[in-house]
Amino acid sequence: MSETDWIYLNGEYLPARDARISPFDRGFLFAQSVYEVTSVYAGKLIDFEPHMARLERSLAGVEIAASEVDLAGIHQELIVRNGLREGLVYVQVSAGEHGPRDFYGPETLAPTVFMFVAHRELIGDVARDGLTAISQEDTRWKRRDYKTTQLVSQSLAYRAARRAGATTAIMHEEGMITEAASANLWMVAADGTLITRHLSSALLPGITRARVQAILGDIEVEERAFSLDELRSAREAFTSSTGAMIAPLLAVDGHLIGNGEPGPITRRVQSAYYDFIGADLRAISWL
Amino acid sequence: MSETDWIYLNGEYLPARDARISPFDRGFLFAQSVYEVTSVYAGKLIDFEPHMARLERSLAGVEIAASEVDLAGIHQELIVRNGLREGLVYVQVSAGEHGPRDFYGPETLAPTVFMFVAHRELIGDVARDGLTAISQEDTRWKRRDYKTTQLVSQSLAYRAARRAGATTAIMHEEGMITEAASANLWMVAADGTLITRHLSSALLPGITRARVQAILGDIEVEERAFSLDELRSAREAFTSSTGAMIAPLLAVDGHLIGNGEPGPITRRVQSAYYDFIGADLRAISWL
Repeated sequence: MSETDWIYLNGEYLPARDARISPFDRGFLFAQSVYEVTSVYAGKLIDFEPHMARLERSLAGVEIAASEVDLAGIHQELIVRNGLREGLVYVQVSAGEHGPRDFYGPETLAPTVFMFVAHRELIGDVARDGLTAISQEDTRWKRRDYKTTQLVSQSLAYRAARRAGATTAIMHEEGMITEAASANLWMVAADGTLITRHLSSALLPGITRARVQAILGDIEVEERAFSLDELRSAREAFTSSTGAMIAPLLAVDGHLIGNGEPGPITRRVQSAYYDFIGADLRAISWL
Repeated sequence: MSETDWIYLNGEYLPARDARISPFDRGFLFAQSVYEVTSVYAGKLIDFEPHMARLERSLAGVEIAASEVDLAGIHQELIVRNGLREGLVYVQVSAGEHGPRDFYGPETLAPTVFMFVAHRELIGDVARDGLTAISQEDTRWKRRDYKTTQLVSQSLAYRAARRAGATTAIMHEEGMITEAASANLWMVAADGTLITRHLSSALLPGITRARVQAILGDIEVEERAFSLDELRSAREAFTSSTGAMIAPLLAVDGHLIGNGEPGPITRRVQSAYYDFIGADLRAISWL
């Protein structure tokens, strides 16, 4: 998003710099607010339907009335107005403004709908070269399967990572990894098994995570919780997310994973995913 | 607050209906935002200094730069402009707007400061007649000692209580009570001991809680975690908070506490607290 990009807010298309909401909005007062980020490649939305299904589920989870606006149409309109070929579309739906601050709010919480785009290279340096992480206690609320804007833990984790010279954080509870700061985590264990944590309220059910499972072909995946210790002794690891797609994880807390290079399974998953989104694999020299 | 009340927003005094922030504010995108509510009785702020000390601590906890505005002066100005004799002053400090959405944000997060007042009777029906609660699992994040606007759990708890015909919710983790939905909880156990949970990251260090401890006189208090089972068999119970001050708790999940009436220790604590804030005890007929 740049200040002159077009955003969408409650029925209007506006330049980003002109977007304004009331500070009495329950998204601002109570973080009663959920969101989705969908990637756009070659002008096309990737896995749009599961993102919108998850949005509906998150809305129900925080008791916001399902949005009646044409989210698909607005996504398309923002892509066209902003000339978006590659990047992200963000949609946030908050519980809206309902007069004075009041924990209860009205029986029906009618939403504020806010959307914007970000131009971003999706198959870039991080995909090629990988990233590094610190580990950090997961301090999030207990319903991480709802994608709310209660994101203080994640913001603090990213900021701690930057201070430590890393890119992101691996979050854990008593040593058991939940996920990365805004991505699901996968590892190829010492015995060669591909592992990612099973779904529960402890982590977000990633759309990219589900897509990776669907396109793994003959690579089997074991879904179970795993520890930081297991990650340190893994052969390779990678994250899956909308914004970074498939990103090799090379080190955690300064400890190299495998030989500290993107591994062969990671490259195979990247190939399969880029193929799925319609990228020209021959043009990706490092694959 | 009514739509015509004066609010304060980033250096300006405005009618509430004219207050506007950017939806790119990190308070809206990430709930990176903290707040305080201070009560006003007979036009005077109650325990203002500890509220502001807690605000500074919360700001540091979520890495927002300490506000350089004269918060004491703005509190006073809002009281005067709104003719506030009895009620609340709310102040929220978010991490502000810093351009595009980005989990890291800049090294220094400069704040948005938003304040408004609420006219409210502080020694009213709830203080006299008490309230009822449901019990609910505490799903909040792990740093509840920071007063952030990550308040979805509390909002959902209040909404669930309303649906069940109760006023509030008692939040617990595996049966051990943390606090009420927006208040600390106290009980007089079956053996007559006054108990409230010890401070930790599991609950908010209440300003009213601390004040109650300071004015208990010869009533001893034991600080320890206690269970829902203990609460059900307690002689009496009450909550302490800024908005409801001292409120008798009469029942939980439909189970009466004691005889289901405000108890004698609760009434003594109310008397001591109302005396502290300068109320005329002779004018409170039910004390």
